Amino acid sequence: MKADKRKVEVCLTPSVFPEFRNDDAIVVVVDILRATSAIITAFMHGVRKIIPVATLGEAKDYKDRGYLVAAERDGIVRDFADFGNSPYNFREEMIRNREIVYSTTNGTQCIMMARNSYRVLVGGYLNLRALGDFITAEQRDLLILCAGWKNKFNLEDTLFAGALAETVLHDHNYGTICDSAIASIDLWKLARADLMQYIEKAAQRHRLKKNGLDDVIEYCHTRDLTAVIPVLKENYLINIKDL
Amino acid sequence: MKADKRKVEVCLTPSVFPEFRNDDAIVVVVDILRATSAIITAFMHGVRKIIPVATLGEAKDYKDRGYLVAAERDGIVRDFADFGNSPYNFREEMIRNREIVYSTTNGTQCIMMARNSYRVLVGGYLNLRALGDFITAEQRDLLILCAGWKNKFNLEDTLFAGALAETVLHDHNYGTICDSAIASIDLWKLARADLMQYIEKAAQRHRLKKNGLDDVIEYCHTRDLTAVIPVLKENYLINIKDL
Repeated sequence: MKADKRKVEVCLTPSVFPEFRNDDAIVVVVDILRATSAIITAFMHGVRKIIPVATLGEAKDYKDRGYLVAAERDGIVRDFADFGNSPYNFREEMIRNREIVYSTTNGTQCIMMARNSYRVLVGGYLNLRALGDFITAEQRDLLILCAGWKNKFNLEDTLFAGALAETVLHDHNYGTICDSAIASIDLWKLARADLMQYIEKAAQRHRLKKNGLDDVIEYCHTRDLTAVIPVLKENYLINIKDL
Repeated sequence: MKADKRKVEVCLTPSVFPEFRNDDAIVVVVDILRATSAIITAFMHGVRKIIPVATLGEAKDYKDRGYLVAAERDGIVRDFADFGNSPYNFREEMIRNREIVYSTTNGTQCIMMARNSYRVLVGGYLNLRALGDFITAEQRDLLILCAGWKNKFNLEDTLFAGALAETVLHDHNYGTICDSAIASIDLWKLARADLMQYIEKAAQRHRLKKNGLDDVIEYCHTRDLTAVIPVLKENYLINIKDL
């Protein structure tokens, strides 16, 4: 890779992020099943602001202060919450022009650990092409941060990392010498012809099925439904066009 | 995966090990380029004991007490040391029936972090078949611990993890629901037909080349040169037949 090229790197689990930290980079946070797909959907349907919080306690505090709150654990909507964490909850009539609080553990941690980067974006198949266009227009290094599962590698985030890395590497100003980017791209190439069949292997697919939440899997793997890109501003997310 | 099956799991980087810890498992530590390949080679050539140490200071202390010491950094043998860390250094006439100290950062850390497991074995292509036979004879869970590179994922250790996982999964008493095991196996299947060409992509291959140390790459990817398996006993390694 020539020294003047922009770098593409993939961080497969949050615990490795310190080794990859690059404050000049655009960081794209990925938690395909389901946090980042749900957040993109909410902005697609007109939400104005999303405040990601890590604990149910914080979510409840916001609820007491009048916010709309999405909070569930193991697929069960919490009593105090307005809806669960599924992308299907974020219907336009519920959320347009509203601020909502979204309770997520992995996703929040990843978004906040990257906050010193040039930009923190929320990514998924739903906005894949828009992300690629935005990143290559900015001509910045790209670091894709996979939320994984309880700090472990997961297949669905890695495949998306491969899809996005490949997209950006079509721009000849970008290159990679990152082993995890190379592996992600090779896995993506292996999986993409029949993504749903490949995802059958993923552990999270089985966890969601067990909890009756697997209805979202195909939706979360649908490409380019929207050009909306959620971006971190201070400690909340907004539509990048409102930045 | 049926509940009565033995588990196969792959831990892609040492920092994730706490999430995988399983004291009933056999842990195979992998650092293909070059620590575990060098250690296997030393036992193949009759070394009696290897003491892995993390720092050059420790290595020097052992040297002062009369031990043979292998120690280098960035490919340069340290003044006080008897040889560098390449597998080619461990010739039979130098080491048969000797105890040697081997200075390695990643490798030592991985070996010691797994020390509470049922067994800690040192693995590589050089003893792949022997490892598979030993593990399936024991009928224990298998956890493959990749040393990676400075806590990051690397291709060469992941490919070997895939090779060993696939070998052990031929035993129908074994199964996996581990996403990183699945990804490792798929990458291995992609790479194995022309492993040397695939390894061209790996960052470590370029680091070794830059330092003139890439002569070992093909050797470190040679399958089944030996049936020797190094095993951790207290804080040193011995040949498993001497256990």
